[in-house]
Order: sequence, then C-alpha cells, then structure tokens
Amino acid sequence: MAFKHKRIIEMENKMQAGRSNNKKYAIGVDVGGTKILLILADRQGNVAFKKKVDSSGDLEDVCSIIDGFLQESQIQSEEIAGMCLGVPGEINGEGVVRLSIQLGWKNINVKDYVSRRYPFPVYVKNDVNLSALGEKWLGNGENTDHLVYISIGTGIGGAIIANGHLVEGFGYSAGEIGYFTDREDVIKDRMNSLSNFGNLERKISGKSITEKAQCIGMSAPELFSQYSKGNREVDEIINQFVLELSIVIANTLCFLNPEYVIIGGGVSESLGAIMPSIQQMVSQISIFQSKIRLSKLGGETGAFGCIYYVFFEALGKNIQ
Amino acid sequence: MAFKHKRIIEMENKMQAGRSNNKKYAIGVDVGGTKILLILADRQGNVAFKKKVDSSGDLEDVCSIIDGFLQESQIQSEEIAGMCLGVPGEINGEGVVRLSIQLGWKNINVKDYVSRRYPFPVYVKNDVNLSALGEKWLGNGENTDHLVYISIGTGIGGAIIANGHLVEGFGYSAGEIGYFTDREDVIKDRMNSLSNFGNLERKISGKSITEKAQCIGMSAPELFSQYSKGNREVDEIINQFVLELSIVIANTLCFLNPEYVIIGGGVSESLGAIMPSIQQMVSQISIFQSKIRLSKLGGETGAFGCIYYVFFEALGKNIQ
Repeated sequence: MAFKHKRIIEMENKMQAGRSNNKKYAIGVDVGGTKILLILADRQGNVAFKKKVDSSGDLEDVCSIIDGFLQESQIQSEEIAGMCLGVPGEINGEGVVRLSIQLGWKNINVKDYVSRRYPFPVYVKNDVNLSALGEKWLGNGENTDHLVYISIGTGIGGAIIANGHLVEGFGYSAGEIGYFTDREDVIKDRMNSLSNFGNLERKISGKSITEKAQCIGMSAPELFSQYSKGNREVDEIINQFVLELSIVIANTLCFLNPEYVIIGGGVSESLGAIMPSIQQMVSQISIFQSKIRLSKLGGETGAFGCIYYVFFEALGKNIQ
Repeated sequence: MAFKHKRIIEMENKMQAGRSNNKKYAIGVDVGGTKILLILADRQGNVAFKKKVDSSGDLEDVCSIIDGFLQESQIQSEEIAGMCLGVPGEINGEGVVRLSIQLGWKNINVKDYVSRRYPFPVYVKNDVNLSALGEKWLGNGENTDHLVYISIGTGIGGAIIANGHLVEGFGYSAGEIGYFTDREDVIKDRMNSLSNFGNLERKISGKSITEKAQCIGMSAPELFSQYSKGNREVDEIINQFVLELSIVIANTLCFLNPEYVIIGGGVSESLGAIMPSIQQMVSQISIFQSKIRLSKLGGETGAFGCIYYVFFEALGKNIQ
C-alpha cells in the first residue's frame, strides 16, 4: 500500500463515513404467494415506510411493486444501503431460487434479475432463515447468538442461528425440519421425498392440523380455541400435536443447545393456549433448558429479518 | 491512534512477525480416563513430538505428564503458541469442567489450574468438539466449513462445525445427540436424565452394542466381523444398529445440511463393513446428500483438533 499522509487518510475516512451515513435505510421485501410485505427501515429498526400489496407471484410483478413502493416512500436511492428479498423455497448462495413451489419459480437467478433494476445491492434469501434473524433482532430472541426458529404455516420449516450467524448449510438447506423422521416412519415405509410433505410435516403442519380439524367439523383456529375453552372433544388431536412438536423441540435442544426456540408462522397465532403444555413436555423429555416462545413480530418478522440481513450480515462483512 | 511514521510502523510489523514466527508449535492433550495422548505439532500439522501415557485421571497427574512431555520434547516454551486440553464431559466457555464422569471431575476450573503452570495460553474444550476440528483439518473432512462428527465410544456424542466454526451452543452442550428421542421412547416413558445414558445411547452406543453381542456370546468387534463374513445370526442386531444410526444421520442432514458426516470413536473402528449399508439407508430416508465417512485420524483426531483450535480458532481471533 502506498504511503499516505495522515491528513489525507483522515479526510478520506471522513468522506467514507459521510457516504455510509447517507445510506441509512434498508428495504425488506417478504415475497409470499399472494401478498408482498415491504418495509423500509433504518439500522435501529425504525420504520420509515411500510406496505402490504397483493401479488400474482410473477417476478416482473414483484419488481413493479418494489418500484411503486420506492416512489411512494419518497426516499432517494442514494439513502438505501441495500434490499433483501425473502423467498419461500430453496435458494443458493448466489441468489438463485432453485425451487419455490409457492411462487412457481424454478432455477431463476432472482438476485441478478432484480439487481439490474436498482443502484443498491440486492440479496435473496430463504424467508424462514430471515424470520429467524428478525426475531433475534427485534422480536423475542433478544439479540441472542443461539436461536432456533420453527415456522409452522402450511408446511413446517426451521432456521438456525449459531455463534450469532445464520447457519445455511453446505447446500443452503439447513433447518429443513419438515423432513425429520423416526423409526416408526421408516418401518411403516413413510419415506421423505423432494417437493412432497416431509414426515414431520405430515404430523404437525398447518395442512395436517387443518385436515384433522375438518374431520370433527372445525377449522384449525377453532380447534385451538375450543381446547382453551375446555372442549374435551379436541384433546386427542391437540395432545398429539403437542407431543410431536415437543419431541422435535427436544431434539433441537440436544443437538444445538439454543438459548431460544421461537415458534412462528401462521399456525403459531393459534398456539398461545398450548404453549405451557409444550414447555412442560419439553422439560420432561429433554435435559437441556431453552426459552421456548411464540414469535413477537408475527407476519412482519421476515421483512425485518431482511433489513437485519442487509445491515448486519451482508454489509457488516461478517458473513461466513 | 497517534500518528506514526511509516518506517516505525514497518519496523514494528517486522518485530511482531518475528515474535509470532517463533511460536511455531502448539500442544494438543487428549485427556482420557486411563490414557493421555500428547502431540506437539506446527500449524501445518507436522508432528514434532508425540506420546501416549497411562494416567490416573487426577488433574495433578495430568500436569506432571505434560511437564514430562515438554522436557522430553526439548522444545522451548517460547516456541509454543498455546496448549489445548480435550476433556470428555461438559465444559463451559471459561474452561471450567462442570462434569466429567469419565475423569470424576466436577466444577473444576481446569483452564485456571493448568494456566498457572505454563507461560503460554491454555484452552480446555470438549473432546468430541475437538475431534470434529481434527477431522476437518487433517482427516476426512477435507477442510469443509460444514461438518457433523458423530463419536461412538462407550456412549455416543456429536459435534457440529457450521460456517467453518465449532457450534458449542448457548450452554456449551451442542451436539449431545445421545439424548435424541422419538415418539416411541416418550410413549414408553423412556425419559432422558442427566448423567444417565440418553435414549439414543441406549440403542447405538458401544455399551449397548457390547451388551447385545454378549447375549449371543460375542464381543462387539466380533459381531461386526461375523457380519462381514456372512454369519446371519448377527443380522438382526446389525440391522437395528444400521437403522438407528441412519435415522440420526438423516435427521442431522435435514437439520444442518452438512457436507460431511464423519463417524469416529472406538466403535467406528469396527464399522467398515456396514458403511455401505448406512450410506444406502440414509439416501433412502433423506432427501439431502452428504459424504458419510469414517474417521481418518482415529484415536489421534482429538489431539490434532486441540492443535487446530490453538492455531485457528483461539489465536486466529475468529472465535465467535
């Protein structure tokens, strides 16, 4: 490196600081099958602009929605440090969506496609992984370095934060707990297969609980609310759900020893009444302790996770 | 920072480099219940001195053995970057051995005790975690950033490397797969308890396989060698072992998506003949791929892991 005079270095540092201070916002875009949530916030998590929009799930449509959001927000591009898209499905390290069943995307380089339109850096990550970051940052994870996030929506997925960072795995598929299997599954020849529901998903996903509820003429939320009202008719279904979820949490604890296990996703909104049962059962079957909590940010956790990712994982240069 | 002239900075850098170049060795001490393996090696893994010594497991005895090893090696303390002790049991981030059943140690600050005797830094870590680092560095892990190590000895334990670093967990208990549990365990009221064998350990540890072998008048190694000779009498025991181990590996894959799963520990020395069956069964029950291999370094992997820890985790300043 060429030798520089102290005053030149100081001047350059000030200019650099000025430039990065300008870029005080990041955009989080949580891309769902029918809705898109966009949040513009600063590195403290203060929201400058937020919008939820219907979407066809078409990538060009997603970009138009982002364009509209940027215009409406009246924030200049120069003030934006970066944007992260949270996408349901399998996404590699280069931002290629290998498969998103919900969006009907297959082998699309979404990062490339979207990057071309904007002057700031664009990142594309799995939505459940981002939700884990959101809960760590502004939710019930209280900035821990050791968190497991379990998302129960139509299916079931998971995400891992260890040593303060996302664990994405060698093939960017870490946290796919829907494929958890046990001896009984294997003996009964219930094998996991790609693009299909995994063994654990067949037991405790939103789809499975909805099917079980329908058999006794209820919706899934009704099932949980009837349970809290003391309707014994729903006991068996709920007890099975508590048992299976507690086992997977217990296995999570002995494997990763997280400080927090956060349960999110659509179904989690109905789980308040059974959380004490889950916490009690986990403490019976596991020798390891963990704070097991519902998501605090609910439907916004993924979009906040996007913003955290831009500021503290990508731009913080501490991605590993 | 005060302004320094370029030539002063250059001179200081050279002195610093000189100092750290002197410290070219690290010591790995794998402390077992009856034997201690000590290895002195450089940062390329070249062994300068190595010794295996009987030990009572008493901490003072361990220190005397280290003293003798240092004297015999004829290496000067100034040349040693640090020493790491691998200890079986629960060890916290401050080097306190909370519980080591094998050594009979409970709440002993081993790092403090040993540090006082030597002029170089001392680290104390869980032996299975260090074995994972050893296999990553010089073993069958081929320097991957994503590895799960499963140690099958008397009991069964695991260790996780994610994003290139050890995952120790919030309470330094990550990787305790001996406590994996399933629905059948819970329904049959087989609960995990501290200091006792966990549910998975009851199924596939060295202790469990030895007991099963004894029922048909064999030792555990005989059981596996009879299997490879085609003795059908042992099929049932071996098939159960393959099934249970494959399930835990499959769950490891969907959870952490590692590039490598390495199986080590004393029992692994007998597993050569059943590795193809394990690899085949895992590929049937998991949609995720991984290279499943036996340990390359065998009984030395823990001590080499100690040396890796000193050079690349502790002194590399990239501990998280």
